[in-house]
Amino acid sequence: MGALPRTDREGDGAALRVAVVAPPWLELPPDAYGGVESMCSDLVDALVDRGVAVTLLAPGRHGTAAAFRPTGPTADPRLMGQALPEVVHAAQLPELLMDLCVDVVHDNTLAGPLVAGSHGLPTVVTAHGPVQGDLGSYYRTLSRRASLVALSDAQRAHLPSARWAATVPNGVRPERFPFRATKDGYALFLGRMSPDKGPVWAIDAARAAGLPLVLAAKCREDAEKAYFEDNVEPLLGGAVEWIGEVGGQQKHDLLAGARCLLFPIDWEEPFGMVMIEAMACGTPVVALRRGAVPEVVDHGRTGWVCDRPAELPAALLRAAEIDPRACRAAVEDRFSAAALAAGYERVYRQVAASGGPPAAARPAS
Amino acid sequence: MGALPRTDREGDGAALRVAVVAPPWLELPPDAYGGVESMCSDLVDALVDRGVAVTLLAPGRHGTAAAFRPTGPTADPRLMGQALPEVVHAAQLPELLMDLCVDVVHDNTLAGPLVAGSHGLPTVVTAHGPVQGDLGSYYRTLSRRASLVALSDAQRAHLPSARWAATVPNGVRPERFPFRATKDGYALFLGRMSPDKGPVWAIDAARAAGLPLVLAAKCREDAEKAYFEDNVEPLLGGAVEWIGEVGGQQKHDLLAGARCLLFPIDWEEPFGMVMIEAMACGTPVVALRRGAVPEVVDHGRTGWVCDRPAELPAALLRAAEIDPRACRAAVEDRFSAAALAAGYERVYRQVAASGGPPAAARPAS
Repeated sequence: MGALPRTDREGDGAALRVAVVAPPWLELPPDAYGGVESMCSDLVDALVDRGVAVTLLAPGRHGTAAAFRPTGPTADPRLMGQALPEVVHAAQLPELLMDLCVDVVHDNTLAGPLVAGSHGLPTVVTAHGPVQGDLGSYYRTLSRRASLVALSDAQRAHLPSARWAATVPNGVRPERFPFRATKDGYALFLGRMSPDKGPVWAIDAARAAGLPLVLAAKCREDAEKAYFEDNVEPLLGGAVEWIGEVGGQQKHDLLAGARCLLFPIDWEEPFGMVMIEAMACGTPVVALRRGAVPEVVDHGRTGWVCDRPAELPAALLRAAEIDPRACRAAVEDRFSAAALAAGYERVYRQVAASGGPPAAARPAS
Repeated sequence: MGALPRTDREGDGAALRVAVVAPPWLELPPDAYGGVESMCSDLVDALVDRGVAVTLLAPGRHGTAAAFRPTGPTADPRLMGQALPEVVHAAQLPELLMDLCVDVVHDNTLAGPLVAGSHGLPTVVTAHGPVQGDLGSYYRTLSRRASLVALSDAQRAHLPSARWAATVPNGVRPERFPFRATKDGYALFLGRMSPDKGPVWAIDAARAAGLPLVLAAKCREDAEKAYFEDNVEPLLGGAVEWIGEVGGQQKHDLLAGARCLLFPIDWEEPFGMVMIEAMACGTPVVALRRGAVPEVVDHGRTGWVCDRPAELPAALLRAAEIDPRACRAAVEDRFSAAALAAGYERVYRQVAASGGPPAAARPAS
């Protein structure tokens, strides 16, 4: 909770009633993977801590501190991305919401915002991924009726034509991550096996700095495997160790022990959860200035933000100049679940008061 | 057109304005496959023939007699079933429809009906597939706000809890199918390589009757291939010829030349387009009494409807007793695109007059 004020100490004192809608693919809290589901789960727990009356609408079992309405008996992650579970889930929302009497709906699904016109409740939608291409035009359209929340100002800047209501950075529960002040020697690459994440730059930078590199990445899709075989595997060996996909305790230990997280991305990362996970462990971040990086990493305080790959080796060697306690403190202050909940509560109250998205001219309903 | 009255000769004389929404996967008219797209394409052309002011909302190019609003620059059938194209397509509808000033929207997509609450226009939704399981609960939910149309009374009977507005059987353009009065000796199986379609019963029946069988089926999915290898391939040989998937002219020639279409289904077929395609060619249908079969096949007049697989061989031998002209005439009268358009125009006028689905108690919007 830190120093964040509780709802009932705020001005109006009214108990805010919110429905948080999670995707249909996984039960909450998720066992391992599931970025959106983790965020929803941490958010509703932290909102409850703040005194907000939250109901979670999600598939399967009741697993958070919030009230719960199941959107389906089970969740099937194998169907992820398919249309039918999305629309079945969305179609139930108007009726579920009518029974709930909430002030605001916070929808974290793809199809859910389409029914905002049916239930007529003020709706907050978080853009959880990239906002380019088809997704961009989708969010732009949604933003005329719903209040669209970005994960970073960088994400907003990529879709200036949408009516963004707010930016609320993602958060984690710091107490779930092991803080470690004394680090081992290796730099850590942790992400997807994709050119977007820059694994080749990571290898080049560690070699140039003469430092060991641990390379951990999801490598399951055909495209990921092909990229690995063609571009990364030939560079392995020496002090570059490939350990595949990691999760749970192993991931936490790797993050906590690393000299730094090396995050040499080559795309417009909308947020980059792994940066705040590293910082929660007291591990600084050495990254390239793309997407949300300069908003998440405080250059010289929680890591080093480099403009070009050629600057990475020197930054790796200077990782020890960063105070692990400052990294942890940044998460507690700005990127905690408590800060996330405080940020969303602010948005919910604005939206509940104004009844809708920021711009005045909206299509008639 | 047959003897069906034109709109402007009907009672009220008012020009009805309708928007027909087609799925995002294919341009209209479709080149080869695409059952829903074929139906939409034939429907809008036949509605124009009736004097209805129709606008087609579909991806890609303008290819029918109706007015046209593109929902996207191109269509990508490889994405069929995925959520993103569905929701992007649906999200655009409220704005496209606001510019059109229509009396009724006829939505033939999965996600499109979710935005009915946003545009507020009376909406007709055709249930183009099975209505069991998740799809059943989806259509039941939709039927509270939209007017749900069934392809057959059998389909309706499987979801009695939905508020069905009407049954409108599918139709084809008879002039697109070659009529042939003199038949060859073979029976024809034409469909998907699935136990639902009864290919094993087809083989057994043809063998028992001592008749040649041509087996043509889509066999592309893993499940289809596995079923073929395990259950059908071992039975091939002799007078049972497997020719794989067919389309276009080859399909028409096969249908027109067959002694009969053999349709020994083992599931609740909601309609069964291939039955009316066969009949349009003057080819009788020998089928099992499941799903829509007894509504489509007039027993003793356009084919034989059997209660058990053991009755199929005798029915195959009696196929020549059916008059090919009666089969063609049944399509022209009841299962033509003109009849389809007349049926839908009736529904559109009812819905435009009443403003919504049949039952009185609807959730507030």
